[in-house]
Amino acid sequence: MRYLHTMVRVTDVEASLRFYRDALGLELLSRRDFPQGRYTLVFLAAPGDHAAQVELTHNWDPETYTGGRNFGHLAYQVDDIYAACQRLRDHGVTINRPPRDGRMAFVRSPDGISIELLQAGSAKPPAEPWASMPNTGAW
Amino acid sequence: MRYLHTMVRVTDVEASLRFYRDALGLELLSRRDFPQGRYTLVFLAAPGDHAAQVELTHNWDPETYTGGRNFGHLAYQVDDIYAACQRLRDHGVTINRPPRDGRMAFVRSPDGISIELLQAGSAKPPAEPWASMPNTGAW
Repeated sequence: MRYLHTMVRVTDVEASLRFYRDALGLELLSRRDFPQGRYTLVFLAAPGDHAAQVELTHNWDPETYTGGRNFGHLAYQVDDIYAACQRLRDHGVTINRPPRDGRMAFVRSPDGISIELLQAGSAKPPAEPWASMPNTGAW
Repeated sequence: MRYLHTMVRVTDVEASLRFYRDALGLELLSRRDFPQGRYTLVFLAAPGDHAAQVELTHNWDPETYTGGRNFGHLAYQVDDIYAACQRLRDHGVTINRPPRDGRMAFVRSPDGISIELLQAGSAKPPAEPWASMPNTGAW
């Protein structure tokens, strides 16, 4: 038995690729359109960790994607949490829970999926602009 | 960068262990109570695939955990989808989408988290009671 993926629904494939691929740093593994079913499936994974994937489902007929409390978040370990958060910021992503402790951060996808980032190994020394950055919203 | 876990919130740790561990077949990796924060964290993973985990968060102060459409499901590959579904059934879990095709099934956790099971390798030949079992509810 092995874990394959977590599937989340997305309203906009391009906006989601900017978030999951360009800003978060996942690799795009595949993207397939299914005209008969009117949906698109996108698979991404962390570079070098292709076994554990995230599947984005885009239904072509618009739906409203609100969150529910039973789902919490997806968590990824990163080599440099400050670099990861800077790249997210450079792509216009709000760092809801900045890594003030050099260890943990939370952001949200365009559809409100909460993503946790955890520093690999020990926490990094506190550093600006993160150390004095307040929380924004919920995550 | 690597995937760590998907976190879901659970109303009842024991009921969730019966589902995720006993019925679904994940291994319990750790369970820690945090009395000061009034929550319990449980980590599970597929046997032999401990890197990709699911984290159950149980907040001791009751909350209502409804689902949201932006989260889809967690997917696991299994060696024998009929045996996996039989074990779930033996634990009282409804097979919402039975593996009529010998390939894919969906169930829900006690808190409504959708779980997809996929047969490893090629589909198994159709077999009863699955082949003639209707869908139940949504997943």
